Amino acid sequence: MTLPPLGDYLATLRTATPLVHCMTNYVAMNSTANLLLATGASPAMLHAPEEVAEFAAIASGLSINIGTISSHWADAMLTATATADQHAIPWVLDPVAVGATRYRQMLCAKLLASKPRVIRGNASEILALHGLAGQGRGVDSTAPTEQAINAAIALAKHHGCIVAMTGESDWVTNGTQHYRIHGGHPLMPRVTTLGCGLSALVTAFVAANREAPLEAVAAALGCFAVAGERAGKTAQGPGSFQVALLDALYQLTPNDLTTHAQWEAIHGV
Amino acid sequence: MTLPPLGDYLATLRTATPLVHCMTNYVAMNSTANLLLATGASPAMLHAPEEVAEFAAIASGLSINIGTISSHWADAMLTATATADQHAIPWVLDPVAVGATRYRQMLCAKLLASKPRVIRGNASEILALHGLAGQGRGVDSTAPTEQAINAAIALAKHHGCIVAMTGESDWVTNGTQHYRIHGGHPLMPRVTTLGCGLSALVTAFVAANREAPLEAVAAALGCFAVAGERAGKTAQGPGSFQVALLDALYQLTPNDLTTHAQWEAIHGV
Amino acid sequence: MTLPPLGDYLATLRTATPLVHCMTNYVAMNSTANLLLATGASPAMLHAPEEVAEFAAIASGLSINIGTISSHWADAMLTATATADQHAIPWVLDPVAVGATRYRQMLCAKLLASKPRVIRGNASEILALHGLAGQGRGVDSTAPTEQAINAAIALAKHHGCIVAMTGESDWVTNGTQHYRIHGGHPLMPRVTTLGCGLSALVTAFVAANREAPLEAVAAALGCFAVAGERAGKTAQGPGSFQVALLDALYQLTPNDLTTHAQWEAIHGV
Repeated sequence: MTLPPLGDYLATLRTATPLVHCMTNYVAMNSTANLLLATGASPAMLHAPEEVAEFAAIASGLSINIGTISSHWADAMLTATATADQHAIPWVLDPVAVGATRYRQMLCAKLLASKPRVIRGNASEILALHGLAGQGRGVDSTAPTEQAINAAIALAKHHGCIVAMTGESDWVTNGTQHYRIHGGHPLMPRVTTLGCGLSALVTAFVAANREAPLEAVAAALGCFAVAGERAGKTAQGPGSFQVALLDALYQLTPNDLTTHAQWEAIHGV
Repeated sequence: MTLPPLGDYLATLRTATPLVHCMTNYVAMNSTANLLLATGASPAMLHAPEEVAEFAAIASGLSINIGTISSHWADAMLTATATADQHAIPWVLDPVAVGATRYRQMLCAKLLASKPRVIRGNASEILALHGLAGQGRGVDSTAPTEQAINAAIALAKHHGCIVAMTGESDWVTNGTQHYRIHGGHPLMPRVTTLGCGLSALVTAFVAANREAPLEAVAAALGCFAVAGERAGKTAQGPGSFQVALLDALYQLTPNDLTTHAQWEAIHGV
Repeated sequence: MTLPPLGDYLATLRTATPLVHCMTNYVAMNSTANLLLATGASPAMLHAPEEVAEFAAIASGLSINIGTISSHWADAMLTATATADQHAIPWVLDPVAVGATRYRQMLCAKLLASKPRVIRGNASEILALHGLAGQGRGVDSTAPTEQAINAAIALAKHHGCIVAMTGESDWVTNGTQHYRIHGGHPLMPRVTTLGCGLSALVTAFVAANREAPLEAVAAALGCFAVAGERAGKTAQGPGSFQVALLDALYQLTPNDLTTHAQWEAIHGV
């Protein structure tokens, strides 16, 4: 099977400049807005119960991240995701540290009822979310990575959504089709909230490419992977890496993405 | 008419190091504090109802930005602006996205009752605020820019304040005198919260130059315009632009500002 | 007395990668997380009353900073510090602007009841906290610096904790032993929230070096002093300084720290 040119999804995003409504954690707000602007999307951060439904209804996509959650924010997120679901606006869940506390587990269970288009998390978060779905936590004999891939696929099937599981290499699955994306740089985990920003970028790509959400998610991950590699070439440490990453996302052309993204369709998982 | 040397207002700011009480959005807090420190002012971010009036009374100026507003913050802002008004401490309103939701419109209407010294916004925000003043939203035959300039002038007259409307070129008006400032760089809209930070810098300039508020606002916009041009000369993208902008604001001398700011008095609007 | 090699404490931190639970102000969250990651610790930011005790009990250390405090945060901080105290998890208090409002003074008095392992502040904050302890504000004939050093020592004795007082040179005392650390760079006060980030770094060092907390605090201050000097060599202003500081902390080896830190034991204060 020939893979579609990933750069097309970036070109569409830049033409559409989707308005991404972000309800994210305090740590990630500034860096997320800058990542979206650098790549070509338009961020908006707001969360007041008085306005959140009104705004969610006019946004191109909604990005939900529970990093620094508290009850007022949780209520507003549930309003926003219900509104998005009702208006068929794609929304993305980033279940930060869902395995760490019972509060996060209960909140994610409620959010999942509003049908996210995509879940983006690391392996631990995907495993923890999968546990919530009542299919067990997988204390089995498979290796942790295999176990996490199986959890991602099961989660995607169970919720009828796409799951993007990121780490040294990234996986994207809708339960039946799967892609793996390579690239990035070892400095990426040394910069805070890059994963949070990636979830918002996934939202932008899916909002701008509704007809091909699986490939749109792959394109978002591909942007980070290629731009991360480029940033790593000049960076002296995490400070200069973060600066170079924003520059690289800004400079990245659709053709760069198509040519340099390393991704593959995975069969027989 | 000869224009006064803009650098004088920067020199005064650096001597006074005004304490700017910022009640701004979560996205902008860090970058705003850094912009103020780089230029030579002293930021303070606090908002608890228990202390906000006590602190607003001792600050040199108050900067209000409704970007990520919620009801607790709104109440505290109303307390702070009333205190500032009572103590004749200049305060600046940044009505972020006031046109987007009814909640923002109602809040801005309440804030305007405490008489801001300056309103700083983009053309859409100025048009939306002007609509609130009950003078219609101007569905007329004038071009959008002309329409926005007329709205800025009307708003300044109606509220007895200065209006700074920023965009590709910037306008400052007190309703009868008008300045236009040129400069800046196309990368500026690709970095988040620069406008929010500019509103805080306007506050610092007005606080340090109370006898000439209109020229003080022009000086703040001039700093951004000149520093933005300089930053743009070395930047590779929005990441390095933001870093270079802070450096340029720090390095900018009063003489630089006087010499390189492009501004003009506008007659017969 | 031969001073122990400071780099050993950094080596221990990098091996342990302590999980630092940060409840800090909105301005400092992102920069604090990046400072911890660059140096080698693992940050976690969360504050919901529903989960804060559950999480504080599993963290390696807790960092409390009252910069943008409000009542919900204050309640959650009191829960978290009580939990840390109960589980013998070291926690650090950064009493931002405690002298500025009565609200901050009352909150700090309550927090001190949960026995911080370290208090990190500037001279004004240490003097203000000392005043709270009922030992007067010291309107005496000693020079401000001497007065602040005496306040730091008295505060350490009174609360049975370590006090780190930072400024042009830094002091660390447990009431009976005292160290002074030199270094840093004049650009440091022109970058926002570096002090807040340092408090979190102190937490990380103390969490990873429980058997030698006084030297661990000195090592945290030494990292900032040495990395700050290095960053200052290439920086063009506060923007590039902040980037270079993160890179320098990342690049700093234990041997660098041992060799280049300028510190001394102080006798006869």
